[in-house]
Amino acid sequence: MNYQAILNHIEETIQPEFGKGNIPNYIPSLQNISPHKFGMALHLNDGRTFTVGDADEKFSIQSISKLFTLQLVMRQVGEMIWTRIGKEPSGDPFNSLILLENEKGIPRNPFINAGALVTTDILMSNSKDANLSLIQFLKFITQNQNLTEDYDAALSEFNTAHINFALAHLMKNHNVIHNDINELLKTYSRQCSIMMSCTDLASATLPLAFKGYSSLCKETILSEKTAKRINAVMLTCGTYDSVGSFAYRIGLPAKSGVGGGIVAVVPGKMSIAVWSPELDKYGNSYVGAAALEKFSTLTQCSIF
Amino acid sequence: MNYQAILNHIEETIQPEFGKGNIPNYIPSLQNISPHKFGMALHLNDGRTFTVGDADEKFSIQSISKLFTLQLVMRQVGEMIWTRIGKEPSGDPFNSLILLENEKGIPRNPFINAGALVTTDILMSNSKDANLSLIQFLKFITQNQNLTEDYDAALSEFNTAHINFALAHLMKNHNVIHNDINELLKTYSRQCSIMMSCTDLASATLPLAFKGYSSLCKETILSEKTAKRINAVMLTCGTYDSVGSFAYRIGLPAKSGVGGGIVAVVPGKMSIAVWSPELDKYGNSYVGAAALEKFSTLTQCSIF
Amino acid sequence: MNYQAILNHIEETIQPEFGKGNIPNYIPSLQNISPHKFGMALHLNDGRTFTVGDADEKFSIQSISKLFTLQLVMRQVGEMIWTRIGKEPSGDPFNSLILLENEKGIPRNPFINAGALVTTDILMSNSKDANLSLIQFLKFITQNQNLTEDYDAALSEFNTAHINFALAHLMKNHNVIHNDINELLKTYSRQCSIMMSCTDLASATLPLAFKGYSSLCKETILSEKTAKRINAVMLTCGTYDSVGSFAYRIGLPAKSGVGGGIVAVVPGKMSIAVWSPELDKYGNSYVGAAALEKFSTLTQCSIF
Amino acid sequence: MNYQAILNHIEETIQPEFGKGNIPNYIPSLQNISPHKFGMALHLNDGRTFTVGDADEKFSIQSISKLFTLQLVMRQVGEMIWTRIGKEPSGDPFNSLILLENEKGIPRNPFINAGALVTTDILMSNSKDANLSLIQFLKFITQNQNLTEDYDAALSEFNTAHINFALAHLMKNHNVIHNDINELLKTYSRQCSIMMSCTDLASATLPLAFKGYSSLCKETILSEKTAKRINAVMLTCGTYDSVGSFAYRIGLPAKSGVGGGIVAVVPGKMSIAVWSPELDKYGNSYVGAAALEKFSTLTQCSIF
Repeated sequence: MNYQAILNHIEETIQPEFGKGNIPNYIPSLQNISPHKFGMALHLNDGRTFTVGDADEKFSIQSISKLFTLQLVMRQVGEMIWTRIGKEPSGDPFNSLILLENEKGIPRNPFINAGALVTTDILMSNSKDANLSLIQFLKFITQNQNLTEDYDAALSEFNTAHINFALAHLMKNHNVIHNDINELLKTYSRQCSIMMSCTDLASATLPLAFKGYSSLCKETILSEKTAKRINAVMLTCGTYDSVGSFAYRIGLPAKSGVGGGIVAVVPGKMSIAVWSPELDKYGNSYVGAAALEKFSTLTQCSIF
Repeated sequence: MNYQAILNHIEETIQPEFGKGNIPNYIPSLQNISPHKFGMALHLNDGRTFTVGDADEKFSIQSISKLFTLQLVMRQVGEMIWTRIGKEPSGDPFNSLILLENEKGIPRNPFINAGALVTTDILMSNSKDANLSLIQFLKFITQNQNLTEDYDAALSEFNTAHINFALAHLMKNHNVIHNDINELLKTYSRQCSIMMSCTDLASATLPLAFKGYSSLCKETILSEKTAKRINAVMLTCGTYDSVGSFAYRIGLPAKSGVGGGIVAVVPGKMSIAVWSPELDKYGNSYVGAAALEKFSTLTQCSIF
Repeated sequence: MNYQAILNHIEETIQPEFGKGNIPNYIPSLQNISPHKFGMALHLNDGRTFTVGDADEKFSIQSISKLFTLQLVMRQVGEMIWTRIGKEPSGDPFNSLILLENEKGIPRNPFINAGALVTTDILMSNSKDANLSLIQFLKFITQNQNLTEDYDAALSEFNTAHINFALAHLMKNHNVIHNDINELLKTYSRQCSIMMSCTDLASATLPLAFKGYSSLCKETILSEKTAKRINAVMLTCGTYDSVGSFAYRIGLPAKSGVGGGIVAVVPGKMSIAVWSPELDKYGNSYVGAAALEKFSTLTQCSIF
Repeated sequence: MNYQAILNHIEETIQPEFGKGNIPNYIPSLQNISPHKFGMALHLNDGRTFTVGDADEKFSIQSISKLFTLQLVMRQVGEMIWTRIGKEPSGDPFNSLILLENEKGIPRNPFINAGALVTTDILMSNSKDANLSLIQFLKFITQNQNLTEDYDAALSEFNTAHINFALAHLMKNHNVIHNDINELLKTYSRQCSIMMSCTDLASATLPLAFKGYSSLCKETILSEKTAKRINAVMLTCGTYDSVGSFAYRIGLPAKSGVGGGIVAVVPGKMSIAVWSPELDKYGNSYVGAAALEKFSTLTQCSIF
């Protein structure tokens, strides 16, 4: 299959989708980004990579960081994580508080904010320096030493993170959070601010696509079982309140972030990353999702 | 792979799971069923079938009927169905009313009761006799003329279906239901009361496993796209409020019913049906899910 | 105090309030009513009555009937009624289903629709003919034999009462409703359709204002304790989701109906009825509430 | 009426009610209080006061402070307060978050925690030192210079106030809170920790009972209108999720605190305070409410 031709075709035909989404106004660091950026990268197991557009431009990974924190924590505590977080779709917008109230402070899954705060809390309890652990993990699996946090962005998100503070206090009330709330929120904001390109993200997602093994860093990052299970959590919980539509249209496990990035996995075949800043009403990249749909249709790579 | 040996092994090792679930007390016709029944059937594309235990004993398919009604309706109206039903997981117990109140009478997906009532309503509007259409469809795709409804069971469910009546009235208030409510509820109860065996169900699910084509009746039942999309809806919405756990443990699109049946799909490889009457707290067969988990682990057939 | 002068003053100064409310479009029989009707009636214990405007024009009492059904049922079963209905404000719009789901089918209070359906259910279980009982009770306490139901209005309400049907089915599911749902809804619709004037309603409310005794029919209708307690329920639950504002602005126990009527009680001093068809967003007569606020301010009759 | 005899009678007959409620375990400073304390105080306009039991023992006023903060703030900003807080009963437990989510951060009323946080926020914006303002106000209206905060109790409440922190962050997110959240929570905790006796509280409530005027400090504290309106808010919102039952059983505007105190008002006749530490499931003093019910029945002082 001529993947480069397919990516080029997608870049051309995706143009009419620009302007249909919006850049979120509640994250200060996203306000200066050019809305019509578009990049896409594939990484196959044989080492071949394909890119198009702005695939090497870095952007803040935002909630895609939840996917990597989850991996780190499952490497630390394994299935024990599920005693403190659920793994069901939320059926509610991604920062909703209602579900927390009904379920004694246990968040529905690790990909809503409340769940990611618990994942981060576990990471902090099991690491000397949680942020350092994450960035080192990302540098290793991408084999790119040139990854950084955007401290200013992290700070500005921290200062306006009232919903996340509320979630953390609620969970603290239920004893679901163990670390200091200010430290937790700082750590979390810094994770979200990590800057990566589509190429980086496709590399970082290789282990999920290939039973836990990365041909890039030549190491088993996750057990086969854990890799498959994280893919399952992505498919049912990875794209906020539109997981059903994502599965229906695209048919691939995927995790999105409000920075406009989406990573997706074709099990046994390839990892994919796409970026375009304008978001649909659920918080997923509008153009990115459209590009993935085109890709899935053209290559018939849906897992269904 | 020696599927018969695997099924035999599952039947043997599943015994300790009996007694951990419960038979629901709100459905009169299920009260006399022996709780430790267990059957399982596979259907491969090459025509080979494998069965174990009570695989040829008929039971009421209950909510698995929603899967077949959905197929019939998509054959009638195609993607138009999604103007009247959503396709997102509900995040709430399967007969919850709350989501209806917030979303102007549009049910979250076709596999919760509210959504299936709308599917049935569309089927009624597009068929001379909705119940006849469904049973004829099932007879054709199973190539089994010996399928029947259990009228007594249907009647007793109809008489106690207060929650479903409430759902239907609520949706009628929003103009989401077009047919007479009594007729709608009768039709729906009769669908749930259809009696099929694991062998029947595995046959009936062939088109979903093989891009819409059934090697049994040698006909294309659904387009490839529709088959894959229904699988996606099954994975994200098919097992009540435990779709996340199902995807995590089993990794296959599946639809369950409170009669104790579950059908599952290994895309491109096989269709599966399992039956055992005791249910977990979400309404899925406890032993059936355990059997599917064993099967998925032993054959590594997870789609992730 | 010159009550007639006060009523005349209110009628004059209330004119600018017309047009600020709306006639509800979901009740067929209200569509032909002149929106700028206004009437008000007072009934003092010494037998003096004062009226202004359209005080003798009959209108459908709608939810004000809940106040009389409650009295009839408390005469039949006394405090036992509270085993089947709560007496707390709902904090939610008057036909909300949510609270029912969380509280096992027990409605919050007798003045929301769900609660009134239970009251009516009890009345049916304790009367040969519930509608006859109510109309005879009203004829007696108003000393007016000329009261009737509007059958056509009742029938049209019955036919579109999907929300009430849903509520009744939900409660039936919890065994909170004992009678046939169709009969219950018919009885309820007929109660709502009773036609009374402000003069009639002020007469009918005398027992609540005077410790259970009516100087008009010269009989003790309720015990002193029951009369006071019903006033308490009116104050905390009588005006849909604006009981707090009503208490704040007007300071009197009151019960409103979407027909535009409101009855209010000044304990130990007088009963009041007011009518004007345009409603505020909560379902209370906009002009009627404004008139009561003027009256309460001018006569300093707030109970606080 | 022989009020002293009535109080003595209540103290005697109330004994069987001890042990039916519980001391809340989430407030550290309440753990060492003798559960069977009981005191009651009346203050009439003619200056006569009556007390019984532990009426002169100080206890932490907790949520009763909300009543005094509200008065202070209404003296500062008048009716403008209602642009930032509602005045409807919540229909939900006193620290619920759900209503906040649905109503853009505007709390339902000033007597739930969220509402009191907004009241306190306004007080802070309009005072040099909010805590000093409140304690000086209380010293003046009680004519008792011997009132203090319990700093240790305030600090321990502050440290475990996760729900209140969550509420404050949520409202900050909606721009409903203007001051620093840590300062706000400290100020609020200190208000709750103020120590007063029944005698103090009956004195402090005099203005509400007598059209805003206090015969004790010989000054008009509130306008007549404001006094009556605060009484209305107390009746519909003052006793957490049991305002309906309170109005039904007791028939007086009242405000309770989890320290076991309740103040009540008989408009034009007297102010009442009662104290007993064991609480019912809603957070009101079990024995205190029973005592008020006895008092209301014996003196027929219900406002209804």
